[in-house]
Amino acid sequence: MKRAGLRVDTERLRSDIDALADIGRHADQGIYRMAFSEGDMTARAWLRERILDAGLDHYQDGAANIHARLGWDGTRPSVMAGSHIDTVPGAGHLDGALGVICALEALRSLKESGIALKYPLEAVSFSDEEGRFGGMFGSQAVAGIVTPEYLHNACDLDGITLTEAMSAQGLDARDALRAQRAPGSIHAYVELHIEQGPVLDRQGCRIGVVDAITGLFRWEVTLTGTANHAGTTPMDMRADAFQGLADFAAQIERILAEYGSPQSRATIGRAVLMPGAANVIPGRVVFSLDVRDTDSETLDLLADAMQRSLAAVTRRRGLKFAFNVLSRIPPAKCATTVIEAIDATVSELDLPATHLHSGAAHDAQTMSRIAPAGMIFVPSKEGRSHSPAEWTAWRDIEAGANTLLHTLKRLAT
Amino acid sequence: MKRAGLRVDTERLRSDIDALADIGRHADQGIYRMAFSEGDMTARAWLRERILDAGLDHYQDGAANIHARLGWDGTRPSVMAGSHIDTVPGAGHLDGALGVICALEALRSLKESGIALKYPLEAVSFSDEEGRFGGMFGSQAVAGIVTPEYLHNACDLDGITLTEAMSAQGLDARDALRAQRAPGSIHAYVELHIEQGPVLDRQGCRIGVVDAITGLFRWEVTLTGTANHAGTTPMDMRADAFQGLADFAAQIERILAEYGSPQSRATIGRAVLMPGAANVIPGRVVFSLDVRDTDSETLDLLADAMQRSLAAVTRRRGLKFAFNVLSRIPPAKCATTVIEAIDATVSELDLPATHLHSGAAHDAQTMSRIAPAGMIFVPSKEGRSHSPAEWTAWRDIEAGANTLLHTLKRLAT
Repeated sequence: MKRAGLRVDTERLRSDIDALADIGRHADQGIYRMAFSEGDMTARAWLRERILDAGLDHYQDGAANIHARLGWDGTRPSVMAGSHIDTVPGAGHLDGALGVICALEALRSLKESGIALKYPLEAVSFSDEEGRFGGMFGSQAVAGIVTPEYLHNACDLDGITLTEAMSAQGLDARDALRAQRAPGSIHAYVELHIEQGPVLDRQGCRIGVVDAITGLFRWEVTLTGTANHAGTTPMDMRADAFQGLADFAAQIERILAEYGSPQSRATIGRAVLMPGAANVIPGRVVFSLDVRDTDSETLDLLADAMQRSLAAVTRRRGLKFAFNVLSRIPPAKCATTVIEAIDATVSELDLPATHLHSGAAHDAQTMSRIAPAGMIFVPSKEGRSHSPAEWTAWRDIEAGANTLLHTLKRLAT
Repeated sequence: MKRAGLRVDTERLRSDIDALADIGRHADQGIYRMAFSEGDMTARAWLRERILDAGLDHYQDGAANIHARLGWDGTRPSVMAGSHIDTVPGAGHLDGALGVICALEALRSLKESGIALKYPLEAVSFSDEEGRFGGMFGSQAVAGIVTPEYLHNACDLDGITLTEAMSAQGLDARDALRAQRAPGSIHAYVELHIEQGPVLDRQGCRIGVVDAITGLFRWEVTLTGTANHAGTTPMDMRADAFQGLADFAAQIERILAEYGSPQSRATIGRAVLMPGAANVIPGRVVFSLDVRDTDSETLDLLADAMQRSLAAVTRRRGLKFAFNVLSRIPPAKCATTVIEAIDATVSELDLPATHLHSGAAHDAQTMSRIAPAGMIFVPSKEGRSHSPAEWTAWRDIEAGANTLLHTLKRLAT
């Protein structure tokens, strides 16, 4: 990387990453900053201080998203960068936090540089990206797709509602309906994030330019047969729900090869066998099926093929099957203008980069509904994420921060 | 069935089955008479009363097995029939109990008939067949294969030792070492039991003549790969432990066809995926593999083939595998003398019967080590067992009881 010209302050960046990593940390159990928890609220207060210390404007919208603003005048559309500072339970220190701090650092650096901006800049930290109450709450509010029904029904695994959790922090969940941004009010949205996958790490690339964010469908599938004694029931008199699952799982790679793309993924991550005793044929199995692709039609083809395979397998084994759709998130293409700005930046900074797609969901996916959006990835060591073992080399973080800084400069000047 | 001649007292039999079914019953949750529990002790006291009421001799050996004796003089070998009155948690009313009560009823009927006996008769109820402390404790003590190590180590799922549980009932576990019967002291052992499988029910047979009792091996297999994000990890960079299990499960039917017999069974009844989240590739899966056959060499061939398949599957997917042998029970052939006595009886009684093997383990399997042993099966409705839904038609119970009665008469006169 060339050393001259506009650069982030690496000491300040590192100090902020370390300081935020200490908020909500439970020794070696990782970080606990679930949305509107004590840890999250402490981190929010800390972030507000950083914004004010930097001489930036602080703004909190109705969904409790925190904005740092530079050159804001309420008339021109803004160039926005951000991510989230809430975490899953037992998280690492980079997921979300890196994108927020690097966005803040980019604003600080641009403010200090005195460069004239055509568009105001915003660094944003979105509420509940990780899903204590469903996920993407803050960016969905900004995109105007949060509904009164969602606000009424959203609750966490302990049955605490979003309304209760926000109220306990002096916030009114209904204000989220007022957080929607007007069409055209965001000129571009850029999110820096760790890859959370192994591709950049294995390829030795320092920057990933995201061209699409994967969509997904997630089903909970129940296969029902008959629980019977493992010793006394002949093989040809069984209706073994687990063998039905195994038959289906053995078809997954064929289905991806026939109907999917190189971006397709399918995972059975959870399966519960009932009654679950070594000497009883499983009478029922409930399992999750998570299927992803960057193309909406491909996802539809995969869903059809998976359903046909389940129907065939269960018919052959004398089982019944049923499935619930747990979630359905459409894929998002990144905006050409943003991709080109990132491409030009990594070329200028002479960083080894590659195009790839994001297999994980991000706020950028939601933001792409109302603004040209794009993402910058930095490598994740061995693809680890949602774990205290999450790690990215400091030189890669620095490269990512400078890529974000220069991309924002390109988009805003 | 012909109506004339020696028959069990159906009213007395039914009354005893109903009375025992009420001991340890928890409404519609089934029966709880785990070995040396309160329910089991109440049932033992009830059984002792029935034996004394019938004018039979009552004897309890060192393993707390309860014997009713007719014509006992301590010199001639006995013809023994029996089963067990302990149950699994949430049991039905027939498993074990039927064999004990029908044996008792056979002794009562033979006593009342005044028929001269060449050999004394014993009806026995063995302790802990169902395995609160491991299973087959009573019959293993009689067969002389209970060891001091077993007595010292045996404990239930709550950590209560066999020694403690017996001591709480005024019994000394060490006495089990004195329960061994001398070689030649048992002329024949016959056990009446519900089939616990669907074969007789589906074939419309009323009596099953068991020619062999299945042996089994049971493994706990662990496949270890790498837990990773379901969205961000390309299909070709995964080490998915569950897909390894699915690959193996898909080979089971081929392995049985290539190496097994029509009597072979293989079941994966339990599988735990870790970490077990819909959006995480399983890094580890632990599952049970239960494989049964009536032939010892076939079991060895199956074990080798299963191991080869696991090795191949895990090598292909970049997984590791390990397995623990949870149990290994050798198969047992039933004695020709006993099979022939049952065959002659069902022919005399004109009952539709078939030969089959037992896929479940029974006390008869242990008893075959020290005496000519055989079994009589009656149909289980839809093969259900170890459940309150366990059911056998009364006419089948009656047919089974008379088959046992006449088989004992043949063997003892």
